[in-house]
Amino acid sequence: MLKFFVSSKDKKARAGYFETGHGVVETPVFMPVGTQGTVKAVNQKYLEEIKTQVVLSNTYHLYLRPGTEVLEKAGGLHRFMNWQKPILTDSGGFQVFSLSELRKVKQDGVEFKSHLDGSAHFFTPEKVVAIQGSIGSDIIMVLDECTPYPCEYEYALNSAKLTSSWALMSKEAFEKSVPLYGHKQFMFGIIQGSVYKDIRELSAKDIAKLDFDGYAIGGLAVGEPVDIMYEMVDYTTSLMPENKPRYLMGVGRPENLLEAVERGVDMFDCVMPTRNGRNAYLFTSKGILSMRNAKYKDDFSEIDKQCDCYTCKNFSKAYLRHLFIAGEILALELASIHNLYFYLKLMRTAREKIIEGRFSEWKKEILKSISLNNITTEA
Amino acid sequence: MLKFFVSSKDKKARAGYFETGHGVVETPVFMPVGTQGTVKAVNQKYLEEIKTQVVLSNTYHLYLRPGTEVLEKAGGLHRFMNWQKPILTDSGGFQVFSLSELRKVKQDGVEFKSHLDGSAHFFTPEKVVAIQGSIGSDIIMVLDECTPYPCEYEYALNSAKLTSSWALMSKEAFEKSVPLYGHKQFMFGIIQGSVYKDIRELSAKDIAKLDFDGYAIGGLAVGEPVDIMYEMVDYTTSLMPENKPRYLMGVGRPENLLEAVERGVDMFDCVMPTRNGRNAYLFTSKGILSMRNAKYKDDFSEIDKQCDCYTCKNFSKAYLRHLFIAGEILALELASIHNLYFYLKLMRTAREKIIEGRFSEWKKEILKSISLNNITTEA
Repeated sequence: MLKFFVSSKDKKARAGYFETGHGVVETPVFMPVGTQGTVKAVNQKYLEEIKTQVVLSNTYHLYLRPGTEVLEKAGGLHRFMNWQKPILTDSGGFQVFSLSELRKVKQDGVEFKSHLDGSAHFFTPEKVVAIQGSIGSDIIMVLDECTPYPCEYEYALNSAKLTSSWALMSKEAFEKSVPLYGHKQFMFGIIQGSVYKDIRELSAKDIAKLDFDGYAIGGLAVGEPVDIMYEMVDYTTSLMPENKPRYLMGVGRPENLLEAVERGVDMFDCVMPTRNGRNAYLFTSKGILSMRNAKYKDDFSEIDKQCDCYTCKNFSKAYLRHLFIAGEILALELASIHNLYFYLKLMRTAREKIIEGRFSEWKKEILKSISLNNITTEA
Repeated sequence: MLKFFVSSKDKKARAGYFETGHGVVETPVFMPVGTQGTVKAVNQKYLEEIKTQVVLSNTYHLYLRPGTEVLEKAGGLHRFMNWQKPILTDSGGFQVFSLSELRKVKQDGVEFKSHLDGSAHFFTPEKVVAIQGSIGSDIIMVLDECTPYPCEYEYALNSAKLTSSWALMSKEAFEKSVPLYGHKQFMFGIIQGSVYKDIRELSAKDIAKLDFDGYAIGGLAVGEPVDIMYEMVDYTTSLMPENKPRYLMGVGRPENLLEAVERGVDMFDCVMPTRNGRNAYLFTSKGILSMRNAKYKDDFSEIDKQCDCYTCKNFSKAYLRHLFIAGEILALELASIHNLYFYLKLMRTAREKIIEGRFSEWKKEILKSISLNNITTEA
């Protein structure tokens, strides 16, 4: 069992930590997304420099490429990508539903065709556990069905039930499995239920019964209004075990993270900092900057005065703009490093503020400044 | 005047050094190409780590984007790109002839249309000096006409004469100019003459008369057979001043560099390591590897056992192949870092061997191994 310690609480917000075979993770934590065994445009040395605690990678993608055979021969993903800190892997459920063609949900799993070559595959809960065994993830996510938004009540109910039955199958498979690379693996369950409180409650009870190492809230940030997302997060966390980490999957904007921390969430992942970075949107203490903007042409100030990342310490807005306009690869690296640093620091600061007992007060202040100039981005 | 010291000679091969306002440069030296104020896919910290001595940037590109106004406001390219070691800038002549549309060579300069937006521009020798003043290059190259291959005798002769007259105009403009950023600037002349010895001789004499800080051999590596290139290099270096650095522009493959060093060349630049790197071709002590090759799928050995670069010290062939196959940006960075490191180390070792007086012997050995598996690459 994963040992999770809540060291401080500030109303519902929690500062905690848990230990994996690859080190301690302090929560709240943001996990940079390294879908295919690399965080896009950021090398492993910079991931360490910006104090990444956990990299999130993806079962669906790694299964298709490089494949479990290569990963096993490599001695797991940690060795393959040379990342010695914790790795959490998404179960692939989300990708099956969002990326692959001709998927067919059945009682015992999901049939799909690869988005790469159209080849046919079948993911069962057991298979997904086995793939994550080959990957050697510190934290394994169970296979679930992520419902879209909007989603009819009936569909959401049946889907949540299916997710519960898959969770049981996953747990049983996991208990029979033996870690391949000498380090312990942990498994998180996923609560579904779309935007329906009673289904969330049903799902939370079903999943919690199985006594996972941690619990995720799935099926949010799929297009629903943000108020509904917050309401669902608030309601769902109130149903989740106190002594286990809570992970809100695929969320989100900096303000979404802070609102969710306030509602008792401990873990996050999102492509937003890296994807937006590659599109020239920079998160800063004064709001989002669109680095292609002509007004930065001769603005030689740092991107964010309050930031200590490699990008801000070494380069100006004008230089970064030039790199984006000129289509230079360095732009992608510098923007991604900065945005990830911003997210990671936001979570470190949130943790401090929870410990100091002034999280909500700080949240209000910081939201005022980081929400300035709020460009609608593509994430 | 640039002070260039030849500390050792081994037949025609020279080990030397010269001092700029941004530090000492030890020769023979390879200069990574940072066309638009960034070496593609490699950040400035890694450029330092791999012991880059000089970055080559490009007058034509920087003039079009970000433009001299921005560069002057930034305090020059060194500050703009945060690179505190020497910068040499190509005059832009080569780009005018290879990239731009509707160019028209006139007695007093060259008229061209931008490859970016079709806007009309006129480069005179004086203007090119002024642009490089705005850039703040440690080494300014004169405007020249780079003849194509093949090139008719008559055209080559007239072109070399034009280049000579531009060289004079450049020198006069340079002598009247005042450095903008407090550091001294130096200027190199360029010898043309295509593959005609008598024109090379004429050009070398014309250019040497003007007493530049260094001399470049232009108009080679434009498609002529390699034997002719070596013959021209050998002949041209024999006509060049002993006490000035000799720079062979745009060359080339590792073996080309070594052959040219043996013939008395001190400085090189080429897009080959970075461009080939981005195309998955890796230069190694055992020849060129095409990293997309399926045979590396489960080859977890380092790319080059004899290499100490970040890539080789941290990642396997299998991982790099995966990154290329998956289209990941990290592949471009890792391959570029490795290839540049390979080139830079090759020149550092060449220097040591010259000092030890065993350059030719070493060259024969090293060529045997680095020419293994010689894939024809796209550079």
